[in-house]
Amino acid sequence: MNWHLLSMNDLSRDEIESVLATARKDFLELSKRDIKKVPTLRGRTVIDLFYEKSTRTSTSFELAGKRLSADVINVKADASAVGKGESLKDTVLTLNAYRPDIIVLRHPHVGAPAFISRYTEAHVINAGDGKGEHPTQCLLDIFSLQQEFGELEGLKVAIVGDILHSRVARSNIIGFGKMGMQVRLIAPPALLPRQAAALGVEVSHSLDSLAGVDVIYLLRMQRERHEGANFLPSLREYISNYCVSLRHVGRGQRVLHPGPINRGIEIGADLADSGENLILQQVEAGLAVRMAVMYRIIVDNAAAAAQAEVKNIQAVG
Amino acid sequence: MNWHLLSMNDLSRDEIESVLATARKDFLELSKRDIKKVPTLRGRTVIDLFYEKSTRTSTSFELAGKRLSADVINVKADASAVGKGESLKDTVLTLNAYRPDIIVLRHPHVGAPAFISRYTEAHVINAGDGKGEHPTQCLLDIFSLQQEFGELEGLKVAIVGDILHSRVARSNIIGFGKMGMQVRLIAPPALLPRQAAALGVEVSHSLDSLAGVDVIYLLRMQRERHEGANFLPSLREYISNYCVSLRHVGRGQRVLHPGPINRGIEIGADLADSGENLILQQVEAGLAVRMAVMYRIIVDNAAAAAQAEVKNIQAVG
Amino acid sequence: MNWHLLSMNDLSRDEIESVLATARKDFLELSKRDIKKVPTLRGRTVIDLFYEKSTRTSTSFELAGKRLSADVINVKADASAVGKGESLKDTVLTLNAYRPDIIVLRHPHVGAPAFISRYTEAHVINAGDGKGEHPTQCLLDIFSLQQEFGELEGLKVAIVGDILHSRVARSNIIGFGKMGMQVRLIAPPALLPRQAAALGVEVSHSLDSLAGVDVIYLLRMQRERHEGANFLPSLREYISNYCVSLRHVGRGQRVLHPGPINRGIEIGADLADSGENLILQQVEAGLAVRMAVMYRIIVDNAAAAAQAEVKNIQAVG
Repeated sequence: MNWHLLSMNDLSRDEIESVLATARKDFLELSKRDIKKVPTLRGRTVIDLFYEKSTRTSTSFELAGKRLSADVINVKADASAVGKGESLKDTVLTLNAYRPDIIVLRHPHVGAPAFISRYTEAHVINAGDGKGEHPTQCLLDIFSLQQEFGELEGLKVAIVGDILHSRVARSNIIGFGKMGMQVRLIAPPALLPRQAAALGVEVSHSLDSLAGVDVIYLLRMQRERHEGANFLPSLREYISNYCVSLRHVGRGQRVLHPGPINRGIEIGADLADSGENLILQQVEAGLAVRMAVMYRIIVDNAAAAAQAEVKNIQAVG
Repeated sequence: MNWHLLSMNDLSRDEIESVLATARKDFLELSKRDIKKVPTLRGRTVIDLFYEKSTRTSTSFELAGKRLSADVINVKADASAVGKGESLKDTVLTLNAYRPDIIVLRHPHVGAPAFISRYTEAHVINAGDGKGEHPTQCLLDIFSLQQEFGELEGLKVAIVGDILHSRVARSNIIGFGKMGMQVRLIAPPALLPRQAAALGVEVSHSLDSLAGVDVIYLLRMQRERHEGANFLPSLREYISNYCVSLRHVGRGQRVLHPGPINRGIEIGADLADSGENLILQQVEAGLAVRMAVMYRIIVDNAAAAAQAEVKNIQAVG
Repeated sequence: MNWHLLSMNDLSRDEIESVLATARKDFLELSKRDIKKVPTLRGRTVIDLFYEKSTRTSTSFELAGKRLSADVINVKADASAVGKGESLKDTVLTLNAYRPDIIVLRHPHVGAPAFISRYTEAHVINAGDGKGEHPTQCLLDIFSLQQEFGELEGLKVAIVGDILHSRVARSNIIGFGKMGMQVRLIAPPALLPRQAAALGVEVSHSLDSLAGVDVIYLLRMQRERHEGANFLPSLREYISNYCVSLRHVGRGQRVLHPGPINRGIEIGADLADSGENLILQQVEAGLAVRMAVMYRIIVDNAAAAAQAEVKNIQAVG
């Protein structure tokens, strides 16, 4: 892996396959044992720096770090000196002085992880930056699909819902594309990015376009990002046109959702409770994938550094 | 122990004695050593899921988990995706996907621990559910009384105060009864449950009824649960009639309180600072008892599972 | 070290030198290794009890405890039973019943750490008490200056800014004095304590007095402690008279700041980003110094207790 994981653009298809192989081989079964822990990152420091509320992602990263035996420090923005007006840059320079090995950042502004990567020697993992990206979510989605379908090449996926505000959609359009999948976006025009067509994906405004896909990827309605703007003239109309229920799901189709779900808004309660969805497999995959990402980001780069040193010595000698 | 600890009804008198013997034998002295830690639950995951503010109970469970060497994850409801409208069921299904060994739940709704136990393979420990129960508090109270009195059979205890809103009272009426103690409730009529008489306990409205008891169990006035209703026409009148001070405490009587105390409301400052109360012994007992509960809930059930497997093999063979 | 660290008055110059030697020898390099951890305090319990928001100090203490392998419990006042009206005394008595080895306290009231030290057998470390003191900040400042200047005897330091509300200034006036440094205070009259002159330090109202000092120590403008009072008729005027920028810094002068900084208020952005300041060295020093303080407070006192016991035995024998 590269030094940081900021975007799905940072990873080639081979690297995606490789890190997911680590997750599958070394970490997926670990959770089922009594001793759910390996000493791999003992003595390493992981700082989880979250400027947005989160249960699922922050506990997933926290537990991933702890099961790798790292020391994990949680910094929540609203329990922090951020309230005293310190800038993100100064916060990161401060944290960097503790010489953490990894900083996991969630931040409401697009590009924040790339920005802080200039001010720390730690590996930065983007855990969600505004409407930007959420690469570990994409990796766990690919992982879950591989567990279900095996080879992904040629698979058809429809991403449905509030695409405009979704960092998950953005990462998945990139990542699914790299894996050879065909992506179709389904949303009302107001919830699509303007350049959707330019992304090289099909666009539709109707759930009728679910026909023929293998995977239905539902997005959470991000009402907290609508910031007062009138993206949804009527939530009831949205639900009647875009809420996906069990009756929309065809034979063999599988449904994913990054969570947390809004029952009755983007996903019907019947579908949320059905075996057709892979939601909990995604959560479980997330833990294994994040352990793999943290492990590989440390180990690959340490190996690369050691090799570089050997070459230096040879060049000198 | 059973698979979960939801109510004092889950435990027989023998089981109560047994888990408290573990607390006494294995964990009470541990806190006094330099190395206050055993490797018993190394690699196990404990999730403390708290939907109500708490210092005393949450730090007690957190420290109990850490001193057993488990990985402990604290999830506080107001720092969580719960704000994004996820249901308790979906939160628990999500956390369950991490395959925790134990989920400790505090929740404002009665029955929440039983409810979530349907959605997780983890052992669920009820750390307080609304006006429902608080079984580990009852266990630590019994433990503290045993340390002070030895045999509890026939001991007389008066539970005083806001009984209507008290999960502690509910668990203790059950638990003290199982231990053969005689329970008397003292409270103004508005702070007694309607069916108090049906609980098989004496009821009184006057502190005069403290005469002759061995134990005075004071409850915190739960003003945050009064929800606007007029349970207390006058706090001053309540204090003059029900605040227990040192002068109310007879020779040999001992005073317990689950904390946090309201000095000058249900307990006089003189009594709060006196050696007649066992409040700090209760806190210390709580840590040992919670370590014992977590340890036994894991170990007993693992042993039971192993035995069941042996029987299966014998039946097949 | 003494049993507690409440004030810089608790330490002699020799003790300061000794604990900083431990920080330098045993802990400064540790952060640069892959395995940033020692088993020294394994099984010990450290409670970080913070009644004020903090990132920098609370993460520094948390990480220091974890890198010493202690079990660390974070108690934040606004996520706590404090909201239920429990007194500081009762909170500490409760926490003390867990038999922690160290309680690190930050509190808005002067004297709170000394107050709680009467109610716990734990070692109490003052992590900032209102406008009182912040001794570990002073220790890390001395450490940073020693790294930069070597011997401190005779060094001249100007402390600039909101001295009236600054616990850092108070501790540093004491600590710098003990190290033989000459202290000069620079601030508008309204932000100086009335008895400033009685502190045995020079006082000035102009940045012109920066001439000739070796060290410029900037303080954060503590607007949250001004409590509505009109200490600053005009922030713009304050900035024009007291904001220190790169142009104020002479050859060989070094600038310190306890953080978090307010860019453009007490420190110019150019200076904040310049190599003339030691701000990040201070943060790094803080971790090593806090590890040394925690280590020494445990080990020195355990050694003292053992020696006392030997003497007792000899006296008896």
